[in-house]
Amino acid sequence: MKLNQNYKILAASTSTVFGSGYLDYIIEDAVDFLQTDEILFVPYARPSGISYDEYTEAPRKAFGQKNISVKGIHEFSNPKDAIQNAKAIFVGGGNTFLLLKTLYELDVMETLKQVVADGIHYMGSSAGSNLTGMTVGTTNDMPIVYPPSFEALGFLPFNINPHYLDPDPDSTHKGETRETRIKEFHKFNSQPVLGLREGSWLEIENGKIELKGNHTARLFRANEEAVELNNGILDF
Amino acid sequence: MKLNQNYKILAASTSTVFGSGYLDYIIEDAVDFLQTDEILFVPYARPSGISYDEYTEAPRKAFGQKNISVKGIHEFSNPKDAIQNAKAIFVGGGNTFLLLKTLYELDVMETLKQVVADGIHYMGSSAGSNLTGMTVGTTNDMPIVYPPSFEALGFLPFNINPHYLDPDPDSTHKGETRETRIKEFHKFNSQPVLGLREGSWLEIENGKIELKGNHTARLFRANEEAVELNNGILDF
Repeated sequence: MKLNQNYKILAASTSTVFGSGYLDYIIEDAVDFLQTDEILFVPYARPSGISYDEYTEAPRKAFGQKNISVKGIHEFSNPKDAIQNAKAIFVGGGNTFLLLKTLYELDVMETLKQVVADGIHYMGSSAGSNLTGMTVGTTNDMPIVYPPSFEALGFLPFNINPHYLDPDPDSTHKGETRETRIKEFHKFNSQPVLGLREGSWLEIENGKIELKGNHTARLFRANEEAVELNNGILDF
Repeated sequence: MKLNQNYKILAASTSTVFGSGYLDYIIEDAVDFLQTDEILFVPYARPSGISYDEYTEAPRKAFGQKNISVKGIHEFSNPKDAIQNAKAIFVGGGNTFLLLKTLYELDVMETLKQVVADGIHYMGSSAGSNLTGMTVGTTNDMPIVYPPSFEALGFLPFNINPHYLDPDPDSTHKGETRETRIKEFHKFNSQPVLGLREGSWLEIENGKIELKGNHTARLFRANEEAVELNNGILDF
């Protein structure tokens, strides 16, 4: 599997791990990776429905401490221009359906693909990482709005399942486990699905995908047993 | 809020509660409610991607013990005719997106609305209960396929969230709780959402909605605090 050599993508399972602040667990690595003094933040996923302004304060504070300025895409009159002129882009988490619908409605999906193919750094967390996969068909989010498609940015040759959770052997709940859901996905879709646990992330550079963070990741392929992947370069 | 007086609907949170077999907890009540010797089963939600034939065996066994015969809709050459000639309809759980997509593709959504408005009994569990609400925007399922709309059958003047789960105060997982997701839904949608816990169900008859089973249900209205509803006739 050949990835675009220009891609420079950081895809994190979550923005926040238990017991620490927004991006705390990843900020040093993200700063090293993004190599920029200015980030364009995309707040469209609106976690808990908060406003774009409110949401943008979170990455502004986290990156501000590293002397990196953050501008929300909504602060620009033209989102397409904002993306085309961005030094680096960070797409925050929240609701994947809302994020995708907004990006399609603003007609910036192709623009995002283009600038990332040209080598602009892309960082995503949660919903923003879902977008780096082929479709959003493995999001955990509730479908609170109807997007015109489930097609995502397709930087990666697989789907991501962020906030991946192992089945709880003690559960008495009969709702489906995450693994059951992903197996259902594979009855109707062929691409692999990478379950990224909270505290894990991918870095894509030089055509290679590296798994980083505190956990193994769980790789599901259609008609195969799921396997655990260790940190390091992934062999896709 | 006036419901169609003809509606005879049983909407269950789940087909199965922990520690017992398929429909065991509800079969007596369902038999009393449905008042029929023949059920048309709709297996399109395909839990875990099982086949229509395989899936149909589950309700066939459960209702067979009560001398009620079950036919799968896929056993008929024309699903629209099958619905129009049904004595009672049971739409099983599984993946809500797959169920909805299949019903739209077969062009039977309007047929279902019509026969239920004419007084044919409708029973749903999980995904089949999601369908009785206004939209599927509060399903817990993974969007494994893309339906042409999120509009559901709209028998009820609200949405259902089946398998409702209370937030776990001890959780260290940063993915959204069910309550957070429903609150997000209400930033973009105005209809109430009824969280039905496993083991609870609604019976709709004579223009009234009754909550039955072993739990209270949690009602979420936009811009209001959620409240617990006791068993009995719901005041909508």
